[in-house]
Amino acid sequence: MTPPAVVLLSGGLDSATVLAIARDQGFRPAALTFRYGQRHAVEIAAARRVAAAMGVTDHRIADIDLRVFGGSALTADIAVPKGRADAEIADGIPVTYVPARNTIMLSFALAFAEVIGAADIFVGVNAVDYSGYPDCRPDYIAAFERMANLATKAAVEGHRLTLHTPLISLTKAEIIRRGLTLGVDYAITSTCYDPNPEGAACGQCDSCRLRLKGFAEAGLEDPAPYA
Amino acid sequence: MTPPAVVLLSGGLDSATVLAIARDQGFRPAALTFRYGQRHAVEIAAARRVAAAMGVTDHRIADIDLRVFGGSALTADIAVPKGRADAEIADGIPVTYVPARNTIMLSFALAFAEVIGAADIFVGVNAVDYSGYPDCRPDYIAAFERMANLATKAAVEGHRLTLHTPLISLTKAEIIRRGLTLGVDYAITSTCYDPNPEGAACGQCDSCRLRLKGFAEAGLEDPAPYA
Repeated sequence: MTPPAVVLLSGGLDSATVLAIARDQGFRPAALTFRYGQRHAVEIAAARRVAAAMGVTDHRIADIDLRVFGGSALTADIAVPKGRADAEIADGIPVTYVPARNTIMLSFALAFAEVIGAADIFVGVNAVDYSGYPDCRPDYIAAFERMANLATKAAVEGHRLTLHTPLISLTKAEIIRRGLTLGVDYAITSTCYDPNPEGAACGQCDSCRLRLKGFAEAGLEDPAPYA
Repeated sequence: MTPPAVVLLSGGLDSATVLAIARDQGFRPAALTFRYGQRHAVEIAAARRVAAAMGVTDHRIADIDLRVFGGSALTADIAVPKGRADAEIADGIPVTYVPARNTIMLSFALAFAEVIGAADIFVGVNAVDYSGYPDCRPDYIAAFERMANLATKAAVEGHRLTLHTPLISLTKAEIIRRGLTLGVDYAITSTCYDPNPEGAACGQCDSCRLRLKGFAEAGLEDPAPYA
């Protein structure tokens, strides 16, 4: 029987690739997407398209209101930076950092995994482009996995949980190439921090710049719509 | 200056005591309560009363919908057990266990702490009465704290986070005695898993039985209303 795995799916380039990798590794992916008061709610529509395109039969959308805390350009009334150079993007923690976001999302993934009896969770964190985000680093991931194995009924009963981060040390170009060999349709993904209401990407935020640079380094055109 | 501390406040007996302890230890408590689709929404009213009675000026109510996963008598359509003996309560993981609940709540507490610049989080987990809940045990708490210290911007900048669990090894009677010396008014707390619409406790669920036994062992009457 194909074992289930929880895949965190934002609808962006990275998580779409992770979903394809989980499927390729022989798992039956169950996708989890968050509606967290973010500006880029068009991501949710993208997540639905990606899940449908990859034949996911169990896709849950969880509501979590991170606006109750504020503190990030993605959830509060702070401007998304545009047109930053690569060095600026790589350096320090940006204002788009959402406090404890990966910890919160992984905690929900843990609950979902326990409910459906999954021993595997896949998440598209990346320590190359997001070196400024503490919760994208390998030592953080290892510590979360260790905590998770003490947290649940399944763990107590001896079902060891594994947290898979297949993109953690890949460049954006490598991620794109990997996804293309697995049949990912990047035209239906949405990565932009500040898309227009029709879902077209801005092309100028950190996330768009990293994505466009990745396609350029892979020698490809990004098939997604830009404003 | 009085340092801030995040206190997870359910409105129950334990968390009200923890709030009093945090204040007594010289912290300025900021309280965090969850509306998570639970049956016992009257707890939220209790949390507001407790916060007000203890002079908390920053009390946030975060919406998280755990019903998206189901899997517990507290969030799904499963009957809350009534009239169980002490041995049954202590043995195994009950149907009122919510998958990964403490992990999810502590993750939100971590976000809140980061936003308000708090280096301390207080939570009323207890390993005596809730030995069947994996996420109430000391090794789980230690693993969460370790993960949290790798998760946030504050941690990266060297502000070590401490997770306080002052009730972890106390009996219910000891918790009650401690709270009374600190001026906690237990009449305004709500602990029941299945209260009536007016907020009166059922007196029969595991949580009521543990509470009533605690008051009895302390040689006291529970001042809260029972149906």
